[in-house]
Amino acid sequence: MFTSSPTHFDVYERGYIAVDDCGIIQGVYHTLPEDFAYDQLVDFGDKLLIPAMNDMHVHAPQFANMGVAMDMQLLPWLNTYVFPEEAKFADEAYAETIYHSFVSELWRQGTMRAAVFATVHTLATHILARTFDEAGMGAWIGLVGMDRHAPANLCNTSAEWAAGIQTLIDSLASMPLVKPIITPRFIPSCTPEMLRCMGEVAKQTLLPVQSHLSENKQEIAWVKELEPESSCYGDAYYRYGLFGQTPTLMAHCCYTDGEELQLMREQNVYAVHCPTSNCNLASGIAPVRKLLQQGVNVALGSDIAGGHHLSMFRVMQYAVQMSKLQYTASDGKYPFLTLSEVFYMATKVGGSLFGKVGSFEKGYAFDALVIDDLCLSPHHLIASSPIERLERFVYLGDDRHIQHRFCQGKEIKQV
Amino acid sequence: MFTSSPTHFDVYERGYIAVDDCGIIQGVYHTLPEDFAYDQLVDFGDKLLIPAMNDMHVHAPQFANMGVAMDMQLLPWLNTYVFPEEAKFADEAYAETIYHSFVSELWRQGTMRAAVFATVHTLATHILARTFDEAGMGAWIGLVGMDRHAPANLCNTSAEWAAGIQTLIDSLASMPLVKPIITPRFIPSCTPEMLRCMGEVAKQTLLPVQSHLSENKQEIAWVKELEPESSCYGDAYYRYGLFGQTPTLMAHCCYTDGEELQLMREQNVYAVHCPTSNCNLASGIAPVRKLLQQGVNVALGSDIAGGHHLSMFRVMQYAVQMSKLQYTASDGKYPFLTLSEVFYMATKVGGSLFGKVGSFEKGYAFDALVIDDLCLSPHHLIASSPIERLERFVYLGDDRHIQHRFCQGKEIKQV
Repeated sequence: MFTSSPTHFDVYERGYIAVDDCGIIQGVYHTLPEDFAYDQLVDFGDKLLIPAMNDMHVHAPQFANMGVAMDMQLLPWLNTYVFPEEAKFADEAYAETIYHSFVSELWRQGTMRAAVFATVHTLATHILARTFDEAGMGAWIGLVGMDRHAPANLCNTSAEWAAGIQTLIDSLASMPLVKPIITPRFIPSCTPEMLRCMGEVAKQTLLPVQSHLSENKQEIAWVKELEPESSCYGDAYYRYGLFGQTPTLMAHCCYTDGEELQLMREQNVYAVHCPTSNCNLASGIAPVRKLLQQGVNVALGSDIAGGHHLSMFRVMQYAVQMSKLQYTASDGKYPFLTLSEVFYMATKVGGSLFGKVGSFEKGYAFDALVIDDLCLSPHHLIASSPIERLERFVYLGDDRHIQHRFCQGKEIKQV
Repeated sequence: MFTSSPTHFDVYERGYIAVDDCGIIQGVYHTLPEDFAYDQLVDFGDKLLIPAMNDMHVHAPQFANMGVAMDMQLLPWLNTYVFPEEAKFADEAYAETIYHSFVSELWRQGTMRAAVFATVHTLATHILARTFDEAGMGAWIGLVGMDRHAPANLCNTSAEWAAGIQTLIDSLASMPLVKPIITPRFIPSCTPEMLRCMGEVAKQTLLPVQSHLSENKQEIAWVKELEPESSCYGDAYYRYGLFGQTPTLMAHCCYTDGEELQLMREQNVYAVHCPTSNCNLASGIAPVRKLLQQGVNVALGSDIAGGHHLSMFRVMQYAVQMSKLQYTASDGKYPFLTLSEVFYMATKVGGSLFGKVGSFEKGYAFDALVIDDLCLSPHHLIASSPIERLERFVYLGDDRHIQHRFCQGKEIKQV
């Protein structure tokens, strides 16, 4: 079961997926072609087989803060909780411990690839990349650039950042599924010099970019103050070559509208919707239906520790629920998101940043989860369709129901 | 750790609770009085000990629908999913199976007492009561009255309902923790005759009342049409003696304001906030802060299968999160709910409907959960306070972390 498009699930009841030695899907079949030759047949019985999750906005160094300090909005929360924790990643032993726990928990929750913010520390960031690589999981690894409005021990200069990203480009070259991504923390944290430097590196290397956009009203007002010549928050990135000149992920977009929305569409900038974080930080909810209607690609992110949980199934749930509140508040103007739409966001949209990932169509990497959901159906009394079973798993299931996890064709048994 | 008031947690680090043979708390101590005499000392080490959960609005016969059919609003959802499932409870064997699963899952999630809607079937409703009684858990059991706007096989007459409630009053007399509650489904389902009959029974028996109030705009408009002489939805119950004349629980109250709010306060009617259900059914979110500011008592409910999960910890989470969205939408006019406030709702406010339940103060029933949360703290690297540990459990924990469950002093090891 997968979503080749957002409008519906492609369901192959008791179907077959052929995967080659490189982990690439050769075909998906309702019944196996008669003369089909294969080395090995693995039977998952009546379990659900679905694409693995892609978390397109997540802060690895905030793993230890997950689920606590839920009483603040964005800017004070950064200063009180986030920055002190991130400063600890100057210590490589600490980074080793937390990053291993983080990747292990991603794995446990069924997320096989992620776009990750690290910190300003090159060595710790390399450790994060190595942890993904050793696990056999995929990631865009973001060495953060920030040179203002943060404690001195959490800032780097643009020269330090440029040296760091070069180190990572070299050292990650041998990691097939792990790559660096250009990561300005957000406009308030980056001087024009830092942004210019990052834009230059993006231009030279064609590496993608990730950052935060229009999350919170105070933040937007602050950006307006800091970058008075930009016509909108998005334009402040655009002017430095960091808004769609290479593939770009912008988390949140809670207040993106008008010119910014148009710029996102024109530049094919991806919005990463983080509904759990939007709730917890009282940011307001991204206008996802509107973004979709305007032709913007929307992926999903857990955004821990703004988000409280790494499960992308839980994130999907909130995405549907929050869109329902917007549906009601708009008197039906913005139809709510369906399960297939949010599933598509968490699989094929996010996956597209990693190549052909996030679907079971021919040519896609076999990133998959086997879901053993039978215990979720009370006494098997409900004759459930595959889609109802998936829906129940999304709303009621957890890591206990994920029986196998595959990334690029390889089963990952433990991290 | 408990909340004697909504403003803060009462924390007794490595403290003691004395419980007598009847399961009643005799005292809570930071250190044990020197001459304190006791028969038995149970040491829970550094686990968290908290009051058990009270779920004050839940539909037992919708257990099998939990987590599916998340694509409709209230009125079509009732007709398409809810009524056909509830009709099955004419079959006692089916009732036996589902109700046992339901009570077992409540237990698993740490809910020791609940205010429950059953169906119109007296025998099945008795089975539900017996299941709670045999488990040793507490409940208000609602034989539903409904005699219009529902399939014929799901309606009863007021005479049938009156005979049924009398049967239950008699047969539940021997169950110490399980009692009947007068349960009109909601105004659209009950003719004036049914409501008059229920009000009469309430007056004679002094039994409490539970129903639904102002959940959804279409529903409110419908009630206005059906009961044109009532000044508001709440008044339609009030006129029949079903709105605070005896203790009354009204679920939802999403649009309660003005006269209805005043009537709730005057009549001391409890609002039961069901945030997961409010999201899933796109009802809109109850104005909890406003209700509290106006002096209305607010308890919490899972409202499955409108809500998708029985865990009251998850319900608490949503209550905080939804209040944050309201805080932002009101530009800060309505401060968001704190963890201690929602914990208080799920313990002491809900518990007050069962007598002295939901706190660890002297004289309260020992309803408690032992939470083994240590695995939720990544490598124990975060020096967590008890409140931070509880917060992390609320946001990240699940039934795996509930190690012991007590109701009225008795440990319930399995259901």
